[in-house]
Order: sequence, then structure tokens, then C-alpha cells
Amino acid sequence: MAAMNNPSPGRLASVYSEVQTSRLHHALQLPSVLSSQFSLVDRPPSSATGNPDEIAKLFPNLFGQPSAALVPAKEAAVEGKPLKVGVVLSGGQAPGGHNVICGIFDFLQHWAKGSTMYGFKGGPAGVMKCKYVELNTDFVYPYRNQGGFDMICSGRDKIETPEQFKQAEDTANKLELDGLVVIGGDDSNTNACLIAEYFRSKNLKTRVIGCPKTIDGDLKCKEVPTSFGFDTACKIYSEMIGNVMTDARSSGKYYHFVRLMGRAASHITLECALQTHPNIALIGEEVAEKKQTLKNVTDYMTDIVCKRAELGYNYGVILIPEGLIDFVPEVQKLIAELNEILAHDTVDEAGVWKNKLEPESKKLFEFLPPSIQEQLLLERDSHGNVQVAKIETEKMLITMVETELEKRKAEGKYKGTFIGQSHFFGYEGRCGLPTNFDASYCYALGYGAGALLQSGKTGLISSVGNLAAPVSEWTVGGTALTSLMDVERRHGKFKPVIKKAMVELDGAPFKKFVSVRDEWGLKNRYISPGPIQFIGSGADGINHTLILELGVQA
Amino acid sequence: MAAMNNPSPGRLASVYSEVQTSRLHHALQLPSVLSSQFSLVDRPPSSATGNPDEIAKLFPNLFGQPSAALVPAKEAAVEGKPLKVGVVLSGGQAPGGHNVICGIFDFLQHWAKGSTMYGFKGGPAGVMKCKYVELNTDFVYPYRNQGGFDMICSGRDKIETPEQFKQAEDTANKLELDGLVVIGGDDSNTNACLIAEYFRSKNLKTRVIGCPKTIDGDLKCKEVPTSFGFDTACKIYSEMIGNVMTDARSSGKYYHFVRLMGRAASHITLECALQTHPNIALIGEEVAEKKQTLKNVTDYMTDIVCKRAELGYNYGVILIPEGLIDFVPEVQKLIAELNEILAHDTVDEAGVWKNKLEPESKKLFEFLPPSIQEQLLLERDSHGNVQVAKIETEKMLITMVETELEKRKAEGKYKGTFIGQSHFFGYEGRCGLPTNFDASYCYALGYGAGALLQSGKTGLISSVGNLAAPVSEWTVGGTALTSLMDVERRHGKFKPVIKKAMVELDGAPFKKFVSVRDEWGLKNRYISPGPIQFIGSGADGINHTLILELGVQA
Repeated sequence: MAAMNNPSPGRLASVYSEVQTSRLHHALQLPSVLSSQFSLVDRPPSSATGNPDEIAKLFPNLFGQPSAALVPAKEAAVEGKPLKVGVVLSGGQAPGGHNVICGIFDFLQHWAKGSTMYGFKGGPAGVMKCKYVELNTDFVYPYRNQGGFDMICSGRDKIETPEQFKQAEDTANKLELDGLVVIGGDDSNTNACLIAEYFRSKNLKTRVIGCPKTIDGDLKCKEVPTSFGFDTACKIYSEMIGNVMTDARSSGKYYHFVRLMGRAASHITLECALQTHPNIALIGEEVAEKKQTLKNVTDYMTDIVCKRAELGYNYGVILIPEGLIDFVPEVQKLIAELNEILAHDTVDEAGVWKNKLEPESKKLFEFLPPSIQEQLLLERDSHGNVQVAKIETEKMLITMVETELEKRKAEGKYKGTFIGQSHFFGYEGRCGLPTNFDASYCYALGYGAGALLQSGKTGLISSVGNLAAPVSEWTVGGTALTSLMDVERRHGKFKPVIKKAMVELDGAPFKKFVSVRDEWGLKNRYISPGPIQFIGSGADGINHTLILELGVQA
Repeated sequence: MAAMNNPSPGRLASVYSEVQTSRLHHALQLPSVLSSQFSLVDRPPSSATGNPDEIAKLFPNLFGQPSAALVPAKEAAVEGKPLKVGVVLSGGQAPGGHNVICGIFDFLQHWAKGSTMYGFKGGPAGVMKCKYVELNTDFVYPYRNQGGFDMICSGRDKIETPEQFKQAEDTANKLELDGLVVIGGDDSNTNACLIAEYFRSKNLKTRVIGCPKTIDGDLKCKEVPTSFGFDTACKIYSEMIGNVMTDARSSGKYYHFVRLMGRAASHITLECALQTHPNIALIGEEVAEKKQTLKNVTDYMTDIVCKRAELGYNYGVILIPEGLIDFVPEVQKLIAELNEILAHDTVDEAGVWKNKLEPESKKLFEFLPPSIQEQLLLERDSHGNVQVAKIETEKMLITMVETELEKRKAEGKYKGTFIGQSHFFGYEGRCGLPTNFDASYCYALGYGAGALLQSGKTGLISSVGNLAAPVSEWTVGGTALTSLMDVERRHGKFKPVIKKAMVELDGAPFKKFVSVRDEWGLKNRYISPGPIQFIGSGADGINHTLILELGVQA
């Protein structure tokens, strides 16, 4: 397919708000190591997070390669000859993605004059189909410090089959790519490493560098302290939560159940809790670790509602990660049994079919609100499986707490009033204007990725550290993607995976939360972070999770 | 009941975010007429918005009184002796309420030293039950420029019966009130005027002044250009809408249906549309004026979806006022018939009952998605009436557009894909930190209310004008509440009402919208206003509705 130079006018035709325009003019500072001559220093050889022998077999060319750090140098380590570099966005949107691209672009403009940069359109499919736009100064400019992924858009395809790897190879050859930067989450970075290995095995000159993206915050390790977008998304959600808290306290009559993004890990819920001090925040990892049942979770919430009613508070705010019920072991068991039963039997009106469930599963099923029971039985995906993801957890929990409260009221144990209001904050946070932190972090990630490519590196993920310090003191380098990997057994084969970083129950953010949550439960310690500010007070603050994990005093 | 001096620690025990703290320190500028000696000038005698003879009968003491304007004076017009003033918040929260209270407080501190101020707790019920807190500097301080109504909270009670007026009189006498400020919407200001009339008829010294509050923006007239809270709420919703738009454009696969607050009028939807440029925004007043049916509305939306699909856009953003279906005449008719039928007949499974509906109503009922049909039949309020307010309009419209698209697809007229995502932005906007505009506007409203009370005025609504100019040039005065009134016939009696200000189809904001909506429908002219900024670019801008209504060039 032919090059599509600026096929749509992109944002050039857009009208910008005053704030968007002011962000366009916001000057980005670089870590000082990137603002003058630098060279790369290799660290010791790396291993893998788990099963290094299997990882070594899967990545014969890349396994064991060292991570690299940029250090100041007297003169350029490599000749600044022009490069041809492609970039691709993979997976869901996260604030700051455009700045990663701007970082790569500016690096090439400054350190490799005459370079060409291609943006693959619509995610990895763009790489496979060689569908791209050539990026130039005019095209890139309107996206600086702006939210969204619409400069080149994203996609959820993966480069997996031998044919698809061949297509990627053809594209790399056709465009004579020196490098490809893959901006994505855990899966996309695993994929980036497989492509790097493949290109190396084919003796292609094309290097591949990953960048850590996901608002969920579950792609991180020692050298990659956070994924971009998490900071902005949590601050947007926290603004809304803070507003709802003030509303709850003002009207005094609602319990707001707020579901937040984060299916696999509960980092967003934990961070928003640390920012806003809700009465209750449920953390999936804790529910799983303690093998809690839905009844346990309901009782925990209901106990707090009852104690608050005694204190005269018939209102509150409760945060819930969207993946909560995936963490409840008994729910997993029920779902598995339901899938089995529904595949072979019919569901009779009288409910005789329920006797096919194991006793505990039957008990759980009957504990669920009727609307959820119905949803489990009726809404099936294309494989006929129950669709857990479609359950509106916040509404389910409202009904369950309501039912438990009615029981207690009948027993004379509760005299309050309870009105639940449900919220889901999701799409609102994925495409906001990046915070100053995400704007700078992404720019450094992209600029650093350019430096890694120029130095001939492949199979690394761009890593920027020392993030609690001023931007000028941030460290820049690359971490071997293989060092983040473990294997999973799928269809009788080992498959490499970057394990999602879960909320650690012995980590500083969760421990901080545990130390204060009882107080938050009964007393009203609500904080309203307010809208993200780009200048003035609070504009340069970073999120609590990062501060606590870095061990810096808040 | 005894005075409750600071019964709860209020916000003194609160932890503030950096932004909250910076807002606490934000210095509020006053209109210049309020910052030095002023006197009051009466305007000509007033009449009423409608049925002046009836209004004159209902308000024999107040009807016809002039509005008043503050003008600079060489020396104080009235002696600054100490006053006793009460304040009450009435109805739903709106950003800026605390600043109205701060404005009254500061006025008394400065111009009537030694005054006492009481905050009635929990709305008008606090007046009737004489439940109050004495406001002092320490108590008031933490609420400056903060969102919410939690300083004294609000309530939805009305002072209506003779006994209730007597209770209010007792409170006024007991506390020796010189004045009472009622902060509320159209109903509450009508109520304020009735209390003013009652107090005057009883020869009480207590004057009553209203303040225009509602995020819905439907309390306004020539002299009261806007109600407070509208500016902030619309900007919060527009931030979220802008983010969702960027997400829609980035992922390219969702139609976001966003329901916004505004049951009686569609000002919020119109303002958010002017701020963000959605593909579709439905305005209830237009639907009513054109006597559109739900089928018309569905076809209008579906046509745009189809045209966009032909242009390659299978995504979009649609704004919907929460009161939309109240504006559809045929729905009103159906509801009335349903209420009648459901009160007397049983609903048979086979649907024979439907024959009792008029033919058009039956057709409409069958046009509605099954889930909505069910909701109409099952969810009834305590009077047995169908609960239109509970219908999630955005979900209903998604289903209706889906159904119409399937039909067109079957006919070969549509080849796109359609996935609807529903949102409701409501509670998030009522308690945000007030914008610079709302903060200053509320402070001036409160300060001005103090000046009106000191000058012995009653039955006026505090009015601040010339709002497109810098704060120093704003005008300050009071408008006769009776001049805003008309009567409605209820239970065989005339009842005074301040008619809600609807979106005027020949008004500048709607005409502006009409002139651009076709372009917005097909082309993507999305604007992302971003988070409200308190300093820097865009921090001092006022909303489009106000700019257009004031006739100022944007």
C-alpha cells in the first residue's frame, strides 16, 4: 500500500479550547542527560522474572542482554546519521501517548537530522498492512501535550502468526526501518520483544523498542517505575470522586458506589482512594488473597454503613475496581459451573437445574440479586460463556447491601436510611489532557527510545527513573524486555508473558491505605483534589502510588 | 431549640488538597460599587411577568415595588449599625453557594460591625425549627471558594402552610432577625417572596432577600443574567464530554450517548454543546415546539449516524438533556393514559390491555424498547404513577437507534457498525470547586444581598449585572421578586410562580447552535475544554450562553 501522507487533515482542522492551546505552547523540559551529549552504558547481563531457561529458549538472540543507562558524554557516542523509524500505538488510550511520539520525533530532529519517521495507523494492523503516515513538523505539532491517540490511532491486533511476522518483516524492509517503537501495555511489549527477536533472527537492521503505556498502572518494575497515563487518569477520576464526596456530605442522603477502571489490577482504585479518602475502597487483590466471598464483601460494607448510621451519617462514598468479582474465588467457581451447565442443559423455570450446581455455588447463586442471576443466565458471549465483564458490579453491590440492610432493619439492628447511587468512571479518564507529569514523562520516554534506537539497541523497554526528583534529574535508559518475562503454559506450549504488576499487599501504597481506612470508614476525611491544574499549586505533583513506591516522603 | 454553635466541627477537621488550599487563599475582587461608599437608587415601579392583577392581590404589600441599583456615594446612605441576619440554602447543590454566604458575612463584618449572622441548617426546615449555627470568622473561613453546601447544608422543604409561616415568624422574632437571605431556585425565590410578604403583613422588621441558584440555568431574567453554579457545572461536564470526544475519535468505534442534568430546561445541554461541538445535541424545547415524536427524534439521530458511516465515521458523541422525554407531547399523552389504565385495570400477559390505549399511544408504546415498556408498567411511585424520571433516556435512545439501524441495514441502506456507550453526568457537577466566575459572582450576590438588607429592602432578588465586563465594572442591585412572577391555577386557586426560563428558540445561544450543528453532525469539530483552570489561560472565561445572551462578541 502506498504511503498516506496526511490522508486526513488530522487535527490541523480542529478548533482548540484555550486550555488546549495553552498546552500546545507548554514547553517540555528534558532530563539533563538528554539535553546534551550522552553515551550508553551497559549494565550487567539480565535474566528473566521467572523460568529463565524457557525464556532463553524463546528468545535465543535477546535473552540475557543487559539493560542500558544513558550517561553524559564529552562527545556523541554514535554518529548522528539519518534514521528511518516507525512508531505504533497498541491497545487502549492513555493520556500522554502523543508526547511519546513527539519525543521520538524531536530526538530524530535534533540528534539524527534528515531522519524519516512513520506513524503506523490503527495499531499493529498498520504495521502488518504497511498503512502509515509520514510524520513531519506540521503534522505532529497540533498533538503536543494533547490527550487521545488520534494522531495515528491505535488497535488491538497482535502480530502472532508466522504470516503476520512475515508481513511485519516486509514492512520493515520496504520502509528500510532502522527502528520501530511499540507503545503499549504488557501484552504489546511482550509482542514488541517477539518482533525484536524475529527481526534479529532474520538479520534485519530494524531494532524494536517498547514504551510502557496503560492507565491501569499494572505494567511496572524496578527500572520502569510506572506506566504513562496512570497519573492523569487517576487525577481525572479523583476530581470526579472528590466532587461526588462533597455532594454526598452536602445532601447527606446518598451512598455513591463508584466503579473505576482496572479489570486485572486495582491500582486505580487504590490511588484514587489515597487521593480522596473514601469511606470504603475495595481492593481486588486483597479479596483474592483473603479468599473473601461476596457475602464477606457485602458484610464488610454493610457493617460500615450501619456504624455510620449510628453516628448520624446516612451517606458515603465507596470505590470499586471494575474487576472486583474476578477476584472472588467462589464467583470464578460458579461461573465455571454455569458455563458447563448452560452448554449442555436447559434452564427450567422452576429452577430444578440449580441442583446441578455444587452446594456452595448454588448458595452463592441464590445470594445474588435476581437481576444479576438473570444476566448470568441470559447474556452469553459468542462462545456461549457467561459474560462476567458485563455485570455492573456497583449496581450489584448496591442491591446486595440493600438486602442485607433490610434484614438487619427487620432484626432491629439498623435504623438508618440507605439510597445507593451508581457511577462508572471509565472513558472520561483515558483521553484527558496529560498532567505535567505524564506530559514530561512521555516526552522523556519517547526521546529516550530514540536514543536507544540510535545506539543500536533492540528488545528494550524505554525506562525513565528517579521520578520524584525534578525532571532535569530523571534517569534515562532501557530495560531488557526479556528480564520482565515469565512463561505461561497455553495449549501445551510455553508462551512468554510480562506478568501484570498487581497491588502488592505488602507494598507501601496498600499498607498506607490499610493504616487509615478504618478512620476513613467512620469519620469523613474526604479530600477534593479538584480539577487538574497545569500551572500553580499542585500542578507538578505526582501520584501517591508512585511517591510511596519510590519511598519518598509525600 | 437552642443554638447549635458549631455542633459538628464542619470543615475545620478536614484535610485539603493543594488545589482546595490554593482556592482558600484566592482573593475575591468586588465590583467597585461595593468596595466604597454606596447608596441605593430606586428604579420605576415594577409590574409582573404575567397576570399583574392576580400578583397584586397575592402580594398586597410588595407588588409594584421598584427594583434598586447600587450607586457610588460620597457618604454612607444608612447608618452601619449591627444587624442580625439569617441565611438559608434551599434545594439542590450548586457550586458557589458557600461564597454567597461569605459575601453576606464579609459585608456585615465591613459595613455593619458587630452584626450577628445565623446559618439555618438543612434548608427551610432549619428556619421553621429554628435550627441554626452562628457563623463566625473561624467557622466560615474553610468554605471560601469551596464547592458543596455542607457549611449549613440544604433541604427541599417549603414554608407553605399557615402553621409553617407562623414557625418562620417565631424564629424571626426569637432571633430578632433584621434580615433573611434565601439562596435557591425559582420555587425557593417564590417562597422567599411569600415570606417577605407575610413578614411585612405582620409588621415584622425582618426583610427577605433572594439569591438566584441553580446549575440548570433556568432562573434568569433581564436583570438577573444567570443563576450561579451553571458556569461551573457546565464546565465540569464539558471537561468530561471533551475527554469522551477525544476517546471516540481515537478508538473510532463508539457512539457515546451522554445524558446531562436539566429536567425542566435544556440550558446545560445547549451550553455543553457550544463548549464541545458534539455530533448531535437534543434540545427539549425544540422537540416540544416542533411537536416531535420519539420516532422523529430517533430518525434524526439515525440519519446522522448513517451519513457519518458513509464518511467512514462509525463513532460520535450525542448530548441529551435528562428531561428530554418530558418534552415529547406523545409521551405525555401515553403516560397519562397508562396512569389511568394501570389505576383501574390489570395488565394481562397477552397484551389485550393495550387496546385500551388510544391508537397513537398504542403505536408509541409498541415502538418503545421492551425494557422501557417493562419499566413503565412496573415502576410506579407512591401515588401509583408511572415514573418517567427513572427512565434512563440515553439507554432508551441507544436501543431505539440500534433498532432503526438494523432495519436500515436489512434494507441495504446502512453498512456501518454501531456500538452505543451510555453516560450520565450529574452529581459530578453540582459540588465542584466554583470557577473564578462563579466564585466572584456568588461573592457579589451575597455582598449585594447584605447591602439590600441594610438599606431596608425586602422581597428583592440580589442581582449582579454587566457580567461580561471585568468584575470591578459589574453592576449590583436588587430586582423585585414580584416582577418575575406569574400565576398558575392549582386546585382552583391562583398560585404565584417564577416561570422557569426555558431555552428560547429565537435566543442567541440556540440560534448559534442551529447555525453550526449540521457541520458538527458530519464533520468532527470536537473541542476539548480540558479541566477548569484557576489561573492562566481560560481561567477567567465565562460560559457561551451568557456571552451570547449578553450580546458580547465571544
